[in-house]
Amino acid sequence: MAELRFVPISEVEKINIFGRLGKVRDPLPLLFNGSAVEVVVTGSDLWIDFETDNDFHEPWVAYELNGAFMGRQMVLAGEHSICLFRNMNPDTPKRVRFYRELQAMSEDDKCKVLVKGFRLDGEFMEVPKYDLKIEFIGDSITSGEGSYGAVTDVDWLAMYMSASVNYATMTAKALNADYHIVSQGGWGVFCGWDNDVRHNIPSIYEKVCGLAMGPSNEALGTQDPYDFDSWQPDVIVVNLGTNDASAFEQPPLYIEELGATFKQRKNEDGSYNREDELKVVNAAISFLEMLRKHNHHAHIIWAYGMLESNLNLTLTEAINKYREKSGDNNVSFFQLPNTTMRTFGAHMHPGAQAHLEASKVLVDYIKEIFNR
Amino acid sequence: MAELRFVPISEVEKINIFGRLGKVRDPLPLLFNGSAVEVVVTGSDLWIDFETDNDFHEPWVAYELNGAFMGRQMVLAGEHSICLFRNMNPDTPKRVRFYRELQAMSEDDKCKVLVKGFRLDGEFMEVPKYDLKIEFIGDSITSGEGSYGAVTDVDWLAMYMSASVNYATMTAKALNADYHIVSQGGWGVFCGWDNDVRHNIPSIYEKVCGLAMGPSNEALGTQDPYDFDSWQPDVIVVNLGTNDASAFEQPPLYIEELGATFKQRKNEDGSYNREDELKVVNAAISFLEMLRKHNHHAHIIWAYGMLESNLNLTLTEAINKYREKSGDNNVSFFQLPNTTMRTFGAHMHPGAQAHLEASKVLVDYIKEIFNR
Amino acid sequence: MAELRFVPISEVEKINIFGRLGKVRDPLPLLFNGSAVEVVVTGSDLWIDFETDNDFHEPWVAYELNGAFMGRQMVLAGEHSICLFRNMNPDTPKRVRFYRELQAMSEDDKCKVLVKGFRLDGEFMEVPKYDLKIEFIGDSITSGEGSYGAVTDVDWLAMYMSASVNYATMTAKALNADYHIVSQGGWGVFCGWDNDVRHNIPSIYEKVCGLAMGPSNEALGTQDPYDFDSWQPDVIVVNLGTNDASAFEQPPLYIEELGATFKQRKNEDGSYNREDELKVVNAAISFLEMLRKHNHHAHIIWAYGMLESNLNLTLTEAINKYREKSGDNNVSFFQLPNTTMRTFGAHMHPGAQAHLEASKVLVDYIKEIFNR
Amino acid sequence: MAELRFVPISEVEKINIFGRLGKVRDPLPLLFNGSAVEVVVTGSDLWIDFETDNDFHEPWVAYELNGAFMGRQMVLAGEHSICLFRNMNPDTPKRVRFYRELQAMSEDDKCKVLVKGFRLDGEFMEVPKYDLKIEFIGDSITSGEGSYGAVTDVDWLAMYMSASVNYATMTAKALNADYHIVSQGGWGVFCGWDNDVRHNIPSIYEKVCGLAMGPSNEALGTQDPYDFDSWQPDVIVVNLGTNDASAFEQPPLYIEELGATFKQRKNEDGSYNREDELKVVNAAISFLEMLRKHNHHAHIIWAYGMLESNLNLTLTEAINKYREKSGDNNVSFFQLPNTTMRTFGAHMHPGAQAHLEASKVLVDYIKEIFNR
Repeated sequence: MAELRFVPISEVEKINIFGRLGKVRDPLPLLFNGSAVEVVVTGSDLWIDFETDNDFHEPWVAYELNGAFMGRQMVLAGEHSICLFRNMNPDTPKRVRFYRELQAMSEDDKCKVLVKGFRLDGEFMEVPKYDLKIEFIGDSITSGEGSYGAVTDVDWLAMYMSASVNYATMTAKALNADYHIVSQGGWGVFCGWDNDVRHNIPSIYEKVCGLAMGPSNEALGTQDPYDFDSWQPDVIVVNLGTNDASAFEQPPLYIEELGATFKQRKNEDGSYNREDELKVVNAAISFLEMLRKHNHHAHIIWAYGMLESNLNLTLTEAINKYREKSGDNNVSFFQLPNTTMRTFGAHMHPGAQAHLEASKVLVDYIKEIFNR
Repeated sequence: MAELRFVPISEVEKINIFGRLGKVRDPLPLLFNGSAVEVVVTGSDLWIDFETDNDFHEPWVAYELNGAFMGRQMVLAGEHSICLFRNMNPDTPKRVRFYRELQAMSEDDKCKVLVKGFRLDGEFMEVPKYDLKIEFIGDSITSGEGSYGAVTDVDWLAMYMSASVNYATMTAKALNADYHIVSQGGWGVFCGWDNDVRHNIPSIYEKVCGLAMGPSNEALGTQDPYDFDSWQPDVIVVNLGTNDASAFEQPPLYIEELGATFKQRKNEDGSYNREDELKVVNAAISFLEMLRKHNHHAHIIWAYGMLESNLNLTLTEAINKYREKSGDNNVSFFQLPNTTMRTFGAHMHPGAQAHLEASKVLVDYIKEIFNR
Repeated sequence: MAELRFVPISEVEKINIFGRLGKVRDPLPLLFNGSAVEVVVTGSDLWIDFETDNDFHEPWVAYELNGAFMGRQMVLAGEHSICLFRNMNPDTPKRVRFYRELQAMSEDDKCKVLVKGFRLDGEFMEVPKYDLKIEFIGDSITSGEGSYGAVTDVDWLAMYMSASVNYATMTAKALNADYHIVSQGGWGVFCGWDNDVRHNIPSIYEKVCGLAMGPSNEALGTQDPYDFDSWQPDVIVVNLGTNDASAFEQPPLYIEELGATFKQRKNEDGSYNREDELKVVNAAISFLEMLRKHNHHAHIIWAYGMLESNLNLTLTEAINKYREKSGDNNVSFFQLPNTTMRTFGAHMHPGAQAHLEASKVLVDYIKEIFNR
Repeated sequence: MAELRFVPISEVEKINIFGRLGKVRDPLPLLFNGSAVEVVVTGSDLWIDFETDNDFHEPWVAYELNGAFMGRQMVLAGEHSICLFRNMNPDTPKRVRFYRELQAMSEDDKCKVLVKGFRLDGEFMEVPKYDLKIEFIGDSITSGEGSYGAVTDVDWLAMYMSASVNYATMTAKALNADYHIVSQGGWGVFCGWDNDVRHNIPSIYEKVCGLAMGPSNEALGTQDPYDFDSWQPDVIVVNLGTNDASAFEQPPLYIEELGATFKQRKNEDGSYNREDELKVVNAAISFLEMLRKHNHHAHIIWAYGMLESNLNLTLTEAINKYREKSGDNNVSFFQLPNTTMRTFGAHMHPGAQAHLEASKVLVDYIKEIFNR
């Protein structure tokens, strides 16, 4: 390693950065799953230096070479310097992407991944330009929960989540797209899977990474307002609703902080209590308004259905009311294929095959939109 | 054939009849694609006697043995007696279904298939009981258009349509269901593919087979009000909208009979003219009201999307407004998988693989509904 | 039909004839499954006139339009005139193939299909030229046994066999090849499935259609020596061995005609009795010599394994000894994918999916041979 | 980590060890790809301590939890202590397998992975018992070459090889089998891909790990005679021949050590020079004799064909001659599915899908053998 020189991340000019950024750029925080640095280098060896921290939920990282998955590992609190390749043909440019597997972790205030720089014996070359920018907004599905792990595993742990086996990543790759992920397992558009009304994505959407809390994360600017002008997507995929549907099936939840009990109710015939359904409808309308406020030209696809499709009518009611109210027609609803016994991963979440099948139809649909 | 005895259709007591019936039962008209007679017989040989007529569009028929497709052929105007099996083990009961491949033919007033009876040397045995009753209402997709024929074929002919390669039949079989089909190629819920407002399924839904016109069909009772009490479905699958979407892309149509020109308009940004979109919405609401009026307990699934899904929001707007207005929650929206280059059949319609894939997800969805 | 003119088969100059031919050409016998006439015609309607006969095992026929399967039906003894298409665009050339579904029927001396001519209102156009000539030699697998019928069906009947759902047809189509089939259910290279040593394909290979016996077939020349020079294949696919393997598992068979009992024996450890295995080896060597004698340049592929692969070593021993003896290296062994629970058709024979999967790998293999 | 206790590998009694072992057991060398330690533990956290070394070709390791792939990483020379899971439910038994991804490395005398022990806060529980023992003997295919990496990658590097994406591992898992791998990229049964006659698997088969050379490996006993009695397989899968076939296509090779030039020749017609083909035949016969000498009851399957099947006849000639000579019938030939454009991984080697497809048919075949 004596012959390798260190280049701090802030001095790497030829680089693709995936995922939302805040004010701190050196070290560079990878805030969400799929958040990544991508370089093309000559030389025989490439290393990456980064620092991580965590309490209960340790981050996992993965890396790919020339677009192919190569490794994936747990990283525990500390300084890391890992080799991304070695002994390769020094003249051939190699494209490497290093990314965070674990979602932004609202339940672990210390959890973070900070990229410091690269060590190499070659030169940085021009990086690929992407044809499209896509933002994926979602829940555990978009966090890749259960994309790793045995079908029978039930612990709720960092290692089961990923960006490597994830319809969002697959879709972005198939479309040659730059992409952002903003997702949180268990959260919804109105409330979380267990009726926790605090767990709604709109409440954190306007911050850089509202899910990353605590002093050290705040110091990175995660709670700052996000600068939407810095990255305007062409497409926004909203994959929310699965947890909102779940809340109707769960018991009431008393939230001490709010001093109240919450419960999405069902009617005797099994249909949704209209009052409670309208809470979801209204939250979705407001979220669409928020999305449009910040994303001027993006086509917004509400893409839903990978874990049943019980909210199809609820969500389309919101989209239609939003359309009516705003006159904005640049929005659509697209149902994703349901996960089946054949395609489940761990703890009843979509497995690799489910992510692949969802990605295929979503790719076709996005192509269709842009050929129109 | 000397040893076979003829049993007129009206004397066959152990029989399953698929498809809507009118007042004439002997000969028994097979009015729609999928309309069928099914018997279980002992004996070595079985023949069926039937009469057909047609002008331009000749009917096709098919038959299966013990649930497996066996043959399919064109039948031209005249009396027919065809052998369904011969020289089989006389003691084993054999289940045979004989069915119409061609949709009800609104463009050929003479087109018909009339079953007269069976010839056999065995006995009629008990026929299967089906677990579920499903009504499929649709357009060319449900008429199986392009389910036969080369990808390059473009003539619009009877032989390309079927019930044998058809998601409706596949779905009914997978669910062990009795089923009815009411469908017409080119028709919509508001208007036909070419803006012809006369070509809407609601206008014929309340008649036995409003699509079969002309004196000889009328004599069979096709234009009589249908007796909905005679067959109450558990599920109604409405696969309409594809032609309503098409109308927005087609030129204006002058209809002499109505003395007016019709055109579903688009806005400059490519979205649907709201006034015209509302015509579809309102037609769909009215149709849902009509469906509920006649089908008291059926769960109504609007299942759409096999040839693009451009009306997702339009159709769900209708369903939601219908829900709001009626308080009827026994209705849902389910998007079917789009047909792709890999799954097309003839003249850009779903091929066998597209029908199979649509059927698989629809079967899962219907199972989900009834497990709830 | 008044406006159609009849053209006897002998006057149709622009025609592709598939399958072996004997001395009688008008009417033209379709002797094997896959034996076919193919024409390209203009005009709106096309009919075919043919005559069939049978005793127990009635022939089935099928037809395709522009390469796509269109119909399939039983034909009982008599004169037939059936419509292959009608009301099509008269100017567009339509390609039609009419073929025999049922194998040559060694158990029904009356079974035959004789094509007499076409009725049409258009003109015969140039027919396609095929890139390759392939001869398929086989048993029930190549006769398409079980390619139609329910998985539970066990009668042994004509209707379960086909050329339409058959790896041989699929392979020929994928390679744009002309093809011949010579096959018989239950027969082997040395003996039949039940140890009947008379049921070996080599004994009939040199006759036009040695399987078609009886005075009326003989009058067609079926028992005449076949004129191999009239059609020299580029590839011969020998799919034999499945019944030879079966004989080892079956009880001894007394054959009255031969006044002896026959049985392929197994050793106590379950392996094949070497003496009996050598009977298969020697029969296969002799058959390869016979094939090469008549087919000068063909690459011979022994393609085996669709119903288990127990004779892999026995058959390759034969091929290797033939190679050694003859110095002929233009021969190879290729194992086909086994049929599984997922791919079975009727009575434990390959179903459509098994035929498709076998065809895919065989097509790749043949392409590989000719690119070398 | 303060609360974890270290248990040296030699004190772990409840453990499954995969792969060949030599005299040194603490630290425990993982000599081949797929060589692994497997434990079932309670407790919240589990770490593994191991040491690695390498020169050019660094080892990669992977680990799975409850049978599911979890991580994969490069390990560079030094001491390692990595966490295999943390914060899990302490009461639930967790099954963990830690394994070597990289083949035994004949080109890197320092390359090794030595397991020292585990750190845990729980107890070791009983480990699974496996139903079958399988030895896989092969070349780059069995070393998983190209199972990772982009289709376009051409460097020959450790990171592209694996046991995690490998038909051998998949087959063992599907059959609930313990397994050994003995394989080397580029090697054959007679010679290597480039005509290097030193690169034949039989020359190293009788040593513990003849491929691992150099003083430090020798000190581990890799060059000692392997104690075959310590692990008698039920099945041996020999997947060799691909490089022997390649040698016929490559230029002559001068080997300085041997002072001679080597070349497998082809005839003008493209067939193999008989003298050279017989070298492969004889090498294969001798290898079968060697295999049987050491493995008394194993069924030996020569399973070949994942990268073309040009040696089918050559290899079966050897097997048949071996059978004839030895009277040993407990051997068979089974062709594996060829890799196609759809299933290639990196540098024209089988990718994940090719390994999966090969595994499926091999599993079915092995089941078939043991049901007999």
